[in-house]
Amino acid sequence: MDKSFSGLPLTRASVQEAHKLIAPHVHRTPVFRCKTLDEIASTERPGAGEGGGRGARPKIRLWFKCENLQRVGAFKARGAFHAVGRLVERNHAQAVALAARDNGIPAHIIMPSIAMPNKIAGTKGYGATVYFSGSTAPEREAEADRVMKETGARMVPPYDHPDVILGQGTTGLELQEQVAEEMASESSSKKGLNAIITPCGGGGLNSGVALSCEGTGISVFAAEPTHQGADDLRRGLAAHSRITAVSSLSIADGLRTPVGAHPWSILHDRGLLRGAYAVSEEEISRALRLVLERMKVVVEPSAVVGLAVVLFNEEFRRLVEEEGGEEGWDIGVVFTGGNVNLDALPGLLELGKA
Amino acid sequence: MDKSFSGLPLTRASVQEAHKLIAPHVHRTPVFRCKTLDEIASTERPGAGEGGGRGARPKIRLWFKCENLQRVGAFKARGAFHAVGRLVERNHAQAVALAARDNGIPAHIIMPSIAMPNKIAGTKGYGATVYFSGSTAPEREAEADRVMKETGARMVPPYDHPDVILGQGTTGLELQEQVAEEMASESSSKKGLNAIITPCGGGGLNSGVALSCEGTGISVFAAEPTHQGADDLRRGLAAHSRITAVSSLSIADGLRTPVGAHPWSILHDRGLLRGAYAVSEEEISRALRLVLERMKVVVEPSAVVGLAVVLFNEEFRRLVEEEGGEEGWDIGVVFTGGNVNLDALPGLLELGKA
Repeated sequence: MDKSFSGLPLTRASVQEAHKLIAPHVHRTPVFRCKTLDEIASTERPGAGEGGGRGARPKIRLWFKCENLQRVGAFKARGAFHAVGRLVERNHAQAVALAARDNGIPAHIIMPSIAMPNKIAGTKGYGATVYFSGSTAPEREAEADRVMKETGARMVPPYDHPDVILGQGTTGLELQEQVAEEMASESSSKKGLNAIITPCGGGGLNSGVALSCEGTGISVFAAEPTHQGADDLRRGLAAHSRITAVSSLSIADGLRTPVGAHPWSILHDRGLLRGAYAVSEEEISRALRLVLERMKVVVEPSAVVGLAVVLFNEEFRRLVEEEGGEEGWDIGVVFTGGNVNLDALPGLLELGKA
Repeated sequence: MDKSFSGLPLTRASVQEAHKLIAPHVHRTPVFRCKTLDEIASTERPGAGEGGGRGARPKIRLWFKCENLQRVGAFKARGAFHAVGRLVERNHAQAVALAARDNGIPAHIIMPSIAMPNKIAGTKGYGATVYFSGSTAPEREAEADRVMKETGARMVPPYDHPDVILGQGTTGLELQEQVAEEMASESSSKKGLNAIITPCGGGGLNSGVALSCEGTGISVFAAEPTHQGADDLRRGLAAHSRITAVSSLSIADGLRTPVGAHPWSILHDRGLLRGAYAVSEEEISRALRLVLERMKVVVEPSAVVGLAVVLFNEEFRRLVEEEGGEEGWDIGVVFTGGNVNLDALPGLLELGKA
């Protein structure tokens, strides 16, 4: 077993344990609704009925879990707090050193030298020491090894790590709770969500959320960009074989990574994912504009890929129409982060005008 | 008395009545907090101590009332729903016609032909018929008279109307309630806010919020741009004489209007405003960037002028230091709206880099 792993089994109960550990450190981000987007989602898409048939007419109510409003502007705070928290638990000397710094844990971050400037600046802004490497896995790992030897730091990979996955999964737990609370306060006859859809890059969030839904009856879906093969999970599931290399420059820059081994085992081997769907760059851009203009929250392109699937992927929409029927579906949509380069925004939005 | 006015007295109790009427139609927008902005607000400004003295060192905790997340993206929904709601109450024939349209009230809007294209598009998008006039008051009124004669529509001015003021004031009521709830849930020794600051253009929101605070002990402040004399309320208060004409092209385009007669009587004559403070275009731009980047909510430049005063106006900061002392102040900051032209955003943010 991975030496830096707490050993918690990958189950819904462990996600609940993770939530207890990180709750004092992360925000319980709000869940937003948006009538305009419900209407767009529940309306037949113009042109969807080409070739004689009609387009899908699903009934959809959306519940947006706003992890763009999370600390550091992304759900990643959850996995990081959980993985570091577990490290601290098992290493008292370190715990004292860390606690002495009052949460100012010294962090050494390896980033590809082609990383977005705002992400580099943000990382440095939180006090981390940033190291640069080439963008391939061997180059990154060589640099990580060097830094660990030099500084004595422990490794917390961004997604392919059980404790990180459990931490990210707390997003799904909170979303389930918040929707149930809201439905109860509205005296709704429904008790919870039918489905949750999240973007999928390395798969830490998506597989964590899948764990958080195990045994609840909630279907979990993954959303990816089609651009330059970034839909590696969708293609891998179809071939029952994980794709390990992707070279995509999708505007959804958080989703350019292939799915990791741990997430794959949860999503594919254990069958906890209902399906993966992909959307074009233009569709991502259009969803981005809708969220910025209508919901008034700042999201990065990666964050809206789940919404883009709900609004624009005809295959997904037919599924919801068939299974949701007259009552329709309540769908939880995770907005993963808000770390967008504001100066680049007009260019990102321009794509959707095509 | 204004024939289109319900006759409710301009008191806190009337704001509470207004809230009952509009609550089913408007969002109870969330109140956000932001540790980063609390820290910036509570830190001496670089360069503030020029000329030998030190800069102000207030202790500030901020509570942001997010009316950018309100329906139509701004607090203006409150005044409009209240004023129209009161019209409907007094006119049964109209009420039936309107109700039949299921809230699709026919609206005829006069806009200056130099209005921002996104605001024109937004207004049309909500189904209103838009008419254009010159940008002076006589030109606008002539066009309004023509449209009213032609269509039989009733006038709901944007701010200088008692029912509109009462509606906008519900923002302040909710903010007070939400902060009190939050403080109670945190078992805080404090029971509520020390102050509320809102942007001030025509003064409908600012005077409504002032009414909502009457008798509560909460100090109400107004925030304006200095650019090209848009700080007409500040200057008018100093001279005890309302300034009725302003010609400013501040980036805070919602605040280019002079304070109206009804707001002035509340703010000045009745003494319900504690003070008005102004900030530069550069300071507004810097506050805009902080909110977009750190709080991840979409706001328009006008929305952040209150925050800009808290962060950058030394006179205001000294007041908070003196009165807040060791315990500091809890300040409610109203984000008025989020209707920013996204394509123009890089230009708006560039100003703050000076």
